[in-house]
Formats: sequence, C-alpha cells, structure tokens
Amino acid sequence: MENLPERIRIKDIARLAEVSVGTVDRVLHGRLGVSESSKKKVEEILKKLNYHPNVYASALASNKKFLIIYILPEHNEGSYWCDIEKGMKQASEGLTDFHLSVSPLYFDPYTPDTFDACIQEVLAQNPDGVVISPTLPEKTFSLIGELNQAGIPFVFVDSNIAELNPLAFFGQNSVQSGYFAGSMLMLLTNQESQMVIFRHIHSGKVKLMNQQQYREKGFREYMSKHQPKCQIFELDIDVKLSPQEVDALLDRFFAEHPHIQCGLTFNSQVGILGEYLERRAIKDFHLVGYDLLDRNVKCLKNGSVRFLIAQQPIRQGYNSIDELSRHLIFKKEVKQLNFMPIDLLTADNVDYYPDIIEK
Amino acid sequence: MENLPERIRIKDIARLAEVSVGTVDRVLHGRLGVSESSKKKVEEILKKLNYHPNVYASALASNKKFLIIYILPEHNEGSYWCDIEKGMKQASEGLTDFHLSVSPLYFDPYTPDTFDACIQEVLAQNPDGVVISPTLPEKTFSLIGELNQAGIPFVFVDSNIAELNPLAFFGQNSVQSGYFAGSMLMLLTNQESQMVIFRHIHSGKVKLMNQQQYREKGFREYMSKHQPKCQIFELDIDVKLSPQEVDALLDRFFAEHPHIQCGLTFNSQVGILGEYLERRAIKDFHLVGYDLLDRNVKCLKNGSVRFLIAQQPIRQGYNSIDELSRHLIFKKEVKQLNFMPIDLLTADNVDYYPDIIEK
Repeated sequence: MENLPERIRIKDIARLAEVSVGTVDRVLHGRLGVSESSKKKVEEILKKLNYHPNVYASALASNKKFLIIYILPEHNEGSYWCDIEKGMKQASEGLTDFHLSVSPLYFDPYTPDTFDACIQEVLAQNPDGVVISPTLPEKTFSLIGELNQAGIPFVFVDSNIAELNPLAFFGQNSVQSGYFAGSMLMLLTNQESQMVIFRHIHSGKVKLMNQQQYREKGFREYMSKHQPKCQIFELDIDVKLSPQEVDALLDRFFAEHPHIQCGLTFNSQVGILGEYLERRAIKDFHLVGYDLLDRNVKCLKNGSVRFLIAQQPIRQGYNSIDELSRHLIFKKEVKQLNFMPIDLLTADNVDYYPDIIEK
Repeated sequence: MENLPERIRIKDIARLAEVSVGTVDRVLHGRLGVSESSKKKVEEILKKLNYHPNVYASALASNKKFLIIYILPEHNEGSYWCDIEKGMKQASEGLTDFHLSVSPLYFDPYTPDTFDACIQEVLAQNPDGVVISPTLPEKTFSLIGELNQAGIPFVFVDSNIAELNPLAFFGQNSVQSGYFAGSMLMLLTNQESQMVIFRHIHSGKVKLMNQQQYREKGFREYMSKHQPKCQIFELDIDVKLSPQEVDALLDRFFAEHPHIQCGLTFNSQVGILGEYLERRAIKDFHLVGYDLLDRNVKCLKNGSVRFLIAQQPIRQGYNSIDELSRHLIFKKEVKQLNFMPIDLLTADNVDYYPDIIEK
C-alpha cells in the first residue's frame, strides 16, 4: 500500500476507497445513506489501515449530553446492593468529562407496585440508556416493553432474563456457582450423611426472581451427582424474625438434628448464622455462604464461616454503567453475556480480594 | 458559596482564591513558582468546587509524546510471561490516542549479562517511564541507579524489591499465597503424614529472585503452624531434563515413597506433573499448582491437578502499563503497593476466571 501520512485523515480514506469524504464520515459514525458496496469498500480500507478514529476527541468535541438511569432494589448500608451501586457511581464519575450523567431510581422488592413509579419516571426522563436488576420479572417485562418501543437500550445487572435480549448482562452464572459451592462444602467434610440449606425467605407471596433458587439448583445437581446418599435438610428463616426468634429457631433445629455438621446459605446472610455459631461456641460445624459483607468477612476470619463465595459486585456495577456509557458515547461494541468470576474466599486469601475499582 | 456557571473556568477559580489566572494554571499543572499560601488558597477553592480539570482534553490537545519501555525475561508461547505481556500490549493500545508508545526489551534470565544490553538500550532511548520484572536483583539495582539519576520513574511487575522504592508494584503477596496453598492442600487430605514439594530448578548457579522461594516460605509457615508432624519431601526437577528423564525421576521418587499422596509446585510447571499422573493412571494423588497455562487447565479439568492458584497476570501487565501511563499523561496519583488476588481455581469455576481485559 502507498505511503500515507503518519496521521490518517478522512480524505485519505475516501481517496483509497474511491468514495466521497461524506460517505467515509457516514460509515465511521454508523449513519444511514450509504450503499452496501461503498460501505464495504470503506470498511476494507479502514481495516487495512488499522484506522481507529480518535473517539475521545470526537466525544469531547460533541456537545451531546447522555443520561443513564439505573433501577435497583432499596437497600441498607452494608448490603450487597450497596457494592453494586458503589461500582456504578465510580464508573459514572470516570466519564463526567464526556457529558454523562447517571441517575438512580429505587423500588421496594417486597411491594412490586413501587416499580410502576420507576417505569413512569423512566419514560418521563427519556434517558439514553437504562441499567436494571430484574429481580421482579413481571414488572421488568412491562418496563422492557416500553423501552423497546422508545428505542432505549438496557443492561441487566446481577441476574439475567435472557429472553428479553438485553444489550448486556453482568452477573454470575448462579447455577454453576451453586454447583461449585457444593464441591467446596464437601471438601470440608468426610462423606457427611446429612447437611442443611439455610434459606432466608420473605413470608409474603411476592415471587422474586432469585439467585438463591438458581444456586440451590446447581448445588442439588452437584449433590445428586457426587453425594447422592447425603440427606439434605432445609431450614427457612423468615427475614421478619427478630434475632431472638432466629436463635430459638436454630436452637430447635440443632437439637432435633444433632448429627448435622455442615450447611450453607445461598444468599448474603451467612453472617447471621456464623454469629449464632460463635455465640453458642459451636466449633465443629462447617458453614459456607455468599458475598463479602463486613459481618460475613468477620465470621470468615473468626472461623465460624469457612468459605465465602463472591462475585465482585463493585465490578458488576462498574461494568454495567461503564460498558453502556462507552456504547452510547463511543459506539463501542458490547459483549452480551458477561459472567462474573466465581471467587472462593477463605480467611487466608480474603484480604487480597480484588473487588476494588481505582480508575 | 455564590452561584457559578455550570462549567467552571480558571478565571472563576482565580477570582475566588484571590490570585491571578497564571497562578491557578501553575497549581493545576503542578508547576513551580507559586507561593505556599497561594497554592493552599487555590487548592481549597478547587476542593470546594469539586473541580476536576478535563484531563482528556488537555492530554489530547498536547503534542507531547510518551515512551514507555518494559523489560521482561525472554519467554515461549504459552508461558506465564506471555500473559503479562498480553496485558501490557492491551493497555498500550487503549492509550494510543494520547501519543503513547510502548516498546519491549528482553533478557535471558539464565544469562544475567544479557540484562546489561537492556540497561544500555534504556539509557539510549531515554524513555518517560520503565516497567520491569526484577527477577535479577543485582542487575535491577544497577538499572534503577541509572533511572534514578536520569529521573525516570519505574514500576515493578510480578515481584517487588521494596527498598528500591518503585512508583508502583503489581504482583501477588507470594508468602501469603504459599500459606494459602498449604491450607487448601490440607483440605484435600486427611491428616497426611507425608507430602512433597516439586521444585523446578536450573542447574546453573544463577541466583534468581524467585516467587517459588517466597511461596515455599509461606507454605512452610502454614505447615509448621497447622501440620507440624507432616514430613515434607522435596524433589528437584532440573528444567534441562528430557521428558523421559523427568518420568524416570518421578517413577523413582514414587517407588521410594509409596505412601505420599499429596504434593504441590510453586511455579507454573504443574502440568508436567499432572500429565505424568495421567500417563501412569495414578488417581489418588492430590496435586496443587500455580498459574492457568493451557496445559495446567487441561490437567485441572482432567482431575490430575486439583487446584490451581492464579494471580491474573494479564491484569498485572495491563495495570503496570496503564497506571504508569496515566501517571505520565494525566498526572494521576498512583498507589504504590498493588497486590493481585490469590485466586483459587478448580475444575468447577475455572471457566469463569476473570483475567481478561476487554476495554
């Protein structure tokens, strides 16, 4: 190929592709009004030249403002959702130079109708993109119907509803994560004949699309394959019980099942159980749970929780906003399925857990 | 504070801090010639306004070119160092818009004098920054002396020499990693009375600063604390042995130690041992090793290696170049000690390992 100036200009590309400068510009910006054959010629030249338009300069020069809305369940300080949101805020701060603003909406997961106000607010604000945790499947379907009609791209975080075809999903493969939890729990014990799943439930009738369920599914797959004789008990713990009531429930359970020496939870509430074991000075019970909440990590270090499985919620939140923004601002192509790692943390490696974004 | 226009200008800051526009400009760009009191006033106003200069625009507008040189051991396709270098290249590609170029130099770790040519080349090219893996401590000391004299900042990757005070270090805490390896190996077995450390050594006299040694140190700390009665054997495997010689060595070792049922390596060569176990159809040996080389992952999936411990080499390489570049181009403050995670991989979670940079 002939010699080219160090900095390739659009008119060089036009000359080589034998099209007009306007055509090159339209191809570069993905605009309509270009014949297939011209488009192909331009793209071939771009590829040969290894041409990357200076996306930063274009975006900075543009005056276009971008608004992303994210919709999350209401949550308390120290919860799993706080970390998701922390990552989202970090990503948005990193892109303020490009006229990006990011704005939150919250719903009460136990009062699904509170999601309707979120839908109304999204439609009123008409954002450039939306990030949602689709924990309420039916409500999510309604929202996505509206977004599709308005041509607004959306990203799922934490859990996925694949048939809604999001621009991208960031979260764990929950079934595989439960399978992995089973394999690790069984390492702690010698062919146990009994174990228990502690479930945290909400007494109402709300059907939450729940990672807990998928993780339990994967866990049971592991057990039926590798430990088919192990008897699996379940203990439902209502989120509305007082700490005293939880203790009484656990006392009763352990009195009735004196031989059970291992168990797990598929949600982030393992700290409640670890603290119970510490209060009762039960040393020979092997407990596994999820997520690096402060109280969980404390139990891990104390030895009352043996393993925590984690999934980098800060990075999940960060990537959901960052990738959607780069898609909107820089026309970046986005990968649809982005599974988070299935991280195993013990007292000995938890201090080096990488879920921190510092950019 | 009074109302300000949406976009804060330097002259607004100057007015509020009661200094000249030139003074604000000097503070923003970290230039000399500003009194301490003026500097303090300007910084207070910047903080109150939450002012972030548009670093991208400034960097794009500047014509300054940046050169970073990285120095790595020579390596073959598929090795640990390939992943480090892959991450470095990805980081450099992400910043070409900012006139950054990144250029490699290699040395032969078993012929230390080859490092001298690297030092000469660095001094000749006079780069803006250097990234080095300090596997040859003495040679590294010479290089750093020269860099300090020339005022060139440097970053260590993979292993650290803290007393040389690098701008930043990216790598694992090797001692803790070995301690963790011990805790996980012991989960696989029931109070073993014997185990073996497989060492890959170089028969020459070259003293390499070696992660292997630090990991073994941490492992022995774990064992003396938690399994003091376990007898630890060592088997040195010279890197120059042929595959047949390695097999013969291992055959002899296992014949002499028929009761040993677990072992580990502290380097990335565990695949050699896993493949041996597969060839000999030895099923009851528990093997743990390091790094996700393709052959190691294959052994993990086949079951001949039970655990691999990893440390995200692609991210290590990526971050080393990315952080140094952002320091040079955007004057970003850089954290000095950046420990990589201590990741545990099994056949059940390895497919979700996150060491991929896609930006």
